[in-house]
Amino acid sequence: MDRFDTPTPELQTMPLGLYDVVQLALLGAGFALLAYFLYSLTSRNEVSARYRPSVFAGLCLAAVAMVAYALLYSDWDAGFTLHGDVYVPNEEARNTLGTRYIDWSVTVPLLTVELLAVCSVAGAKARNLRFTTMGAAFLMIVTGYLGSQVLSDGRDATALVVWGLISTVFFVYLYVALIGAVRASLPTMGEESAASLRNATIVLLSSFGVYPLVYAIPVFADVTPAWLTAMQVGYSAADVVAKVGFGILTHKVAKLRTAEDVVAGIDTHPEPIWSSNVHKSDGVLPEVGRVSPAVLAAVHRAPDRGAGTDPV
Amino acid sequence: MDRFDTPTPELQTMPLGLYDVVQLALLGAGFALLAYFLYSLTSRNEVSARYRPSVFAGLCLAAVAMVAYALLYSDWDAGFTLHGDVYVPNEEARNTLGTRYIDWSVTVPLLTVELLAVCSVAGAKARNLRFTTMGAAFLMIVTGYLGSQVLSDGRDATALVVWGLISTVFFVYLYVALIGAVRASLPTMGEESAASLRNATIVLLSSFGVYPLVYAIPVFADVTPAWLTAMQVGYSAADVVAKVGFGILTHKVAKLRTAEDVVAGIDTHPEPIWSSNVHKSDGVLPEVGRVSPAVLAAVHRAPDRGAGTDPV
Amino acid sequence: MDRFDTPTPELQTMPLGLYDVVQLALLGAGFALLAYFLYSLTSRNEVSARYRPSVFAGLCLAAVAMVAYALLYSDWDAGFTLHGDVYVPNEEARNTLGTRYIDWSVTVPLLTVELLAVCSVAGAKARNLRFTTMGAAFLMIVTGYLGSQVLSDGRDATALVVWGLISTVFFVYLYVALIGAVRASLPTMGEESAASLRNATIVLLSSFGVYPLVYAIPVFADVTPAWLTAMQVGYSAADVVAKVGFGILTHKVAKLRTAEDVVAGIDTHPEPIWSSNVHKSDGVLPEVGRVSPAVLAAVHRAPDRGAGTDPV
Amino acid sequence: MDRFDTPTPELQTMPLGLYDVVQLALLGAGFALLAYFLYSLTSRNEVSARYRPSVFAGLCLAAVAMVAYALLYSDWDAGFTLHGDVYVPNEEARNTLGTRYIDWSVTVPLLTVELLAVCSVAGAKARNLRFTTMGAAFLMIVTGYLGSQVLSDGRDATALVVWGLISTVFFVYLYVALIGAVRASLPTMGEESAASLRNATIVLLSSFGVYPLVYAIPVFADVTPAWLTAMQVGYSAADVVAKVGFGILTHKVAKLRTAEDVVAGIDTHPEPIWSSNVHKSDGVLPEVGRVSPAVLAAVHRAPDRGAGTDPV
Amino acid sequence: MDRFDTPTPELQTMPLGLYDVVQLALLGAGFALLAYFLYSLTSRNEVSARYRPSVFAGLCLAAVAMVAYALLYSDWDAGFTLHGDVYVPNEEARNTLGTRYIDWSVTVPLLTVELLAVCSVAGAKARNLRFTTMGAAFLMIVTGYLGSQVLSDGRDATALVVWGLISTVFFVYLYVALIGAVRASLPTMGEESAASLRNATIVLLSSFGVYPLVYAIPVFADVTPAWLTAMQVGYSAADVVAKVGFGILTHKVAKLRTAEDVVAGIDTHPEPIWSSNVHKSDGVLPEVGRVSPAVLAAVHRAPDRGAGTDPV
Repeated sequence: MDRFDTPTPELQTMPLGLYDVVQLALLGAGFALLAYFLYSLTSRNEVSARYRPSVFAGLCLAAVAMVAYALLYSDWDAGFTLHGDVYVPNEEARNTLGTRYIDWSVTVPLLTVELLAVCSVAGAKARNLRFTTMGAAFLMIVTGYLGSQVLSDGRDATALVVWGLISTVFFVYLYVALIGAVRASLPTMGEESAASLRNATIVLLSSFGVYPLVYAIPVFADVTPAWLTAMQVGYSAADVVAKVGFGILTHKVAKLRTAEDVVAGIDTHPEPIWSSNVHKSDGVLPEVGRVSPAVLAAVHRAPDRGAGTDPV
Repeated sequence: MDRFDTPTPELQTMPLGLYDVVQLALLGAGFALLAYFLYSLTSRNEVSARYRPSVFAGLCLAAVAMVAYALLYSDWDAGFTLHGDVYVPNEEARNTLGTRYIDWSVTVPLLTVELLAVCSVAGAKARNLRFTTMGAAFLMIVTGYLGSQVLSDGRDATALVVWGLISTVFFVYLYVALIGAVRASLPTMGEESAASLRNATIVLLSSFGVYPLVYAIPVFADVTPAWLTAMQVGYSAADVVAKVGFGILTHKVAKLRTAEDVVAGIDTHPEPIWSSNVHKSDGVLPEVGRVSPAVLAAVHRAPDRGAGTDPV
Repeated sequence: MDRFDTPTPELQTMPLGLYDVVQLALLGAGFALLAYFLYSLTSRNEVSARYRPSVFAGLCLAAVAMVAYALLYSDWDAGFTLHGDVYVPNEEARNTLGTRYIDWSVTVPLLTVELLAVCSVAGAKARNLRFTTMGAAFLMIVTGYLGSQVLSDGRDATALVVWGLISTVFFVYLYVALIGAVRASLPTMGEESAASLRNATIVLLSSFGVYPLVYAIPVFADVTPAWLTAMQVGYSAADVVAKVGFGILTHKVAKLRTAEDVVAGIDTHPEPIWSSNVHKSDGVLPEVGRVSPAVLAAVHRAPDRGAGTDPV
Repeated sequence: MDRFDTPTPELQTMPLGLYDVVQLALLGAGFALLAYFLYSLTSRNEVSARYRPSVFAGLCLAAVAMVAYALLYSDWDAGFTLHGDVYVPNEEARNTLGTRYIDWSVTVPLLTVELLAVCSVAGAKARNLRFTTMGAAFLMIVTGYLGSQVLSDGRDATALVVWGLISTVFFVYLYVALIGAVRASLPTMGEESAASLRNATIVLLSSFGVYPLVYAIPVFADVTPAWLTAMQVGYSAADVVAKVGFGILTHKVAKLRTAEDVVAGIDTHPEPIWSSNVHKSDGVLPEVGRVSPAVLAAVHRAPDRGAGTDPV
Repeated sequence: MDRFDTPTPELQTMPLGLYDVVQLALLGAGFALLAYFLYSLTSRNEVSARYRPSVFAGLCLAAVAMVAYALLYSDWDAGFTLHGDVYVPNEEARNTLGTRYIDWSVTVPLLTVELLAVCSVAGAKARNLRFTTMGAAFLMIVTGYLGSQVLSDGRDATALVVWGLISTVFFVYLYVALIGAVRASLPTMGEESAASLRNATIVLLSSFGVYPLVYAIPVFADVTPAWLTAMQVGYSAADVVAKVGFGILTHKVAKLRTAEDVVAGIDTHPEPIWSSNVHKSDGVLPEVGRVSPAVLAAVHRAPDRGAGTDPV
């Protein structure tokens, strides 16, 4: 096919305006991710231990994506040199799409953890679901990467289509599994948290839909500087929505469910919980306990249980 | 118009003195933002959970602005080369205004969050107001950016004026909405916190007024090295006032309101609150609670509610 | 032997595709380590003081490995220059295997600490075991390094074999000692934590097996670009499994054992513990104590015991 | 005047030994500031909320000064090239004095906050004093900067003298105001804290005296490489004394006064306080409170007070 | 003397193998310091306020040494260029010994603080001892630095010997003072903590002995590439032992003494203390206090005592 005789998508000679738009889209997404990373880092104790795995997933993926955008920004900056009125790509420009796939191979599995940890699936069922959705998310990215970047440098339309379809299989499984978990969880929580969980799911799954659309651009069109701009801006916007927008909604679900647990008396939380200036639950300290010297001594006396050669 | 045949504003050949003034203005603003970032990071627990979203907004925007100034400083340093007694701009100098807009597109929406979170608007009304003011702030920046940077590289006076006016519409909405929220909130709080909130609002909204003035410079004057210096110093000073000055006042409101809530008995806070060496409230621990085994067991027994395949 | 007349393994002229695969493997492993570092940093208080040395070991080794991968990525990026369709190595490429050994000489001893700290061995026995396994791990790496990197730049098959065998002696000791400690500990803990400890041990020891296989490549085959790619990808994947995968399982053991201790009444922990959304233990605060003025005064009165020239 | 025909003070061709002394002075001061920054960051909770603004000022200014020294070190390193046995300055060397003024314009006002926050001035009087001393400190630096760096590149002796005198006016106000505040505070505190406050004030104000002496060097002497070395080493040493030495003494005052407040029963502090291994006060937890549902409901029912569209 | 006609010690033309050994020794020491820095940062609350100055000293010195090794690694990397089979030094290689002295001038005084803070010397005696040992440590480094680096670039054997002897005087004082403090403290603590304190002292003082040995190398031998390698590896190993090894032992003393204080009833500590899986003390919360309104009002009413223009 003719359109695949052109250079790889990322190596376009860019006019000034489009070059600047991509650079600033990368910077803007990086700034948004930095802000969200700091938010999830500093607000993580507003959520009880039950839902905190969701916050951990959010902050880890925010950090990875933030570093990825720092690399993308720096590779875009160093990867093109101004000759007259156009920016000509060099060796460093070759990573400006590939780095995204590596980022996603870590962050998309973590997004499924972030969502599932505020659902009500528990125990072995939760572990299985987490394992299979993380696996599907990882394979979805890796197979998409093989089609678009590795095989013939993304210039072979057949590879793009075949690997795109394989990737889609994992994509479909992910949708079905996540929607199932969310649906089963909605009746177990309060109205406001259920509404936020529904919104979070919609935001995540609809922003996921942007990626295959951008992926398919080189199948249907010659990649021109304008198309590359569209790809970079589209990916950046989708990353912000799927990570920052989704993350803020998920955090809200976790906070509201913490308050529900405290009110229901099944959890303690040392701080009151407020949401949009409305009081949701009081702070509740755990009870004061007493370490049992007898049990402790038994632990230290039992050398064949592996403990206890140095009792106090 | 003649004055738009000159190069884009950021590509001036700068004499030594003016070049140094801009470089040091960028550095000074970056230092002030670094100090403020660390202050909001380390002091965030002086404020109760109710008003903490204000602190989170403040620290996230401080971090973004601080990184933006680090980039501006480094681009200004690398973007000019000394030839004899003048600094001649190169390719890296092209970002020294555009990076500001990207910074603002993230930080100005967060400034509205910072202010609203110490007001008394609550619940759905608060969420709507937050959403619309963040949107208006974002669009105010993006449209200003289109006029001044993207279209004809900011050299088309008509574009500057038209997009400037569109930007102004969002600007006006923002003023009206924020002033309304502050006015409604002032009677709900103590005298000292109300005074600080009033000051914070005045500082924010008046420093916002500097931006359109600087924006309008290229409409009324040829951008000379002196004007570029005025623009860069003006933006830097306005950023410090609107972020650091405003943030310190907002933090004070949040702290004083926390003390008022503790004194009124509607909130607990583990630390005493002092302001300017005056004692405002005692520390108050939350009550000790008890997790209810019956309710907990019910949660774990209810598999169709999504939980409970592994009861303890 | 002929195959050792070729250049050192790390100085291959790499075709585009293989070069990219290595670069992205390094980046992906670095991202995974960054995420895991942040996870162990922020989740460290979910574990009681008893098992926290395991978390400390995990987060310290994650940081070291993360920095090592940042160096590997940057050396790989700067260490090759694109000439036509191939990447030609330069001076900076010389560290892209050696840096790994330095990383391992710090991180592998810490991995044994991470495992032993969730076992039940205690007191002097624990200190001895920790000391000998850390020593064996360190010597295993150093002797492997001598054989593969220092002596004749890894091109002397005899050295590779001899030092490989010496390294194997430490390797065998490590296996025997760690398996012994784990076996003695399994009966002392609950079913779920024992299962996770078993899994963690299997993950660690089986991923350790990858390293000698990769080490042996230059003994049995000419190091071609494809083999170098296999080595770099193999090491990166093994590092992720042995550090991140193992670390998450170890953290789970530590969390579940904390809950067991709280339930048994031999420890306090200020937070409830939940695992996969299942409640494992309530939060328990320590008792309120009283400082004894008489004892304290005695301390301050006893100048020849070194204290007390300034009693209050 | 003849001596002002020589190049600006910072552009000296430096012999090897003097060049090295400056480089290592910059590095040593940077190391001391890094250590002090980490100390104030990690020890900040040893001080009660009353005096914590002092710690915040100290850690923010330490961070700014630390970054300033990192820039000075890097500009000094890149700003000179070895030609034979001498280091010849280039463009990057131009910032190696100016960066100091920008640092001081942020850090000197914060030093006054650090001192005043452990004094006993309170309320409106404290706010006024803080405002005027911060302003005087800022203007003292800015006017000194105008004289020594901006006007005629610091080669005009008249400007040096005139602006130096203006700067001195602010300097004198600062001394008078700070000494007044300290004097008024000494009788309100214990003997040991008063002694430390006196020492801290002496350290701060006497190290401040070094700056005008160094400033005056170019008025009285040709700036030779030896004089530049004296200036850089003098400024570095004064910065370490005025920031690190002063900060450690201030921290001690804040800690001792916290203990005094706890012993007097006017404050709670969750940790015992020890100073130089001597017990100063017990830890005291705040009382357990109870959120009043009636008051809370009133807040949420009062829509015209701005709160309460979503009562729980 | 002939051997001093050769170039300064740090400017050797290095063969491949020795160059790599130094580079990896610098990297390995840097990694160990990074791990130890994170350990002391995250474990600092395992120690009570009484002994925490020891932890603060340890983490501050670890950070300084870590940054120093990052500079050494980067200067070593950039300071030599590969010409054929040898690495030829350039301008950047000149710091690769000097940076060590600057590091030590900050870190060695902090090492004495780290040790003294777990001894039992208290009050004025402790302050004097800390002051004189910090001073002696600082002067020991500075005089050694003068002899080996500044005067004649370390090529004058007489200067080496004379300044080495002066440095030794401070060295001897340090030994005597520290051993005295440790000896006086051993009887005041439990058996296990005393054993660890003894070990820590031996580790510190014996590793200190390595430095004069390395320092003396250029007096007795021509500095060849092999000797430079021995110097760099010797210093790196001594730094790891004296900082990391010593620090871990000191931390153990601090932890065990905290447990002793809690058991004796003279201190509270919110967490149980375990060491090598053996339970040493329960967690003990401080008592709940009550702020006295009368005393507080008196403070606020006393304007001439400096407080109270704004009573609540």
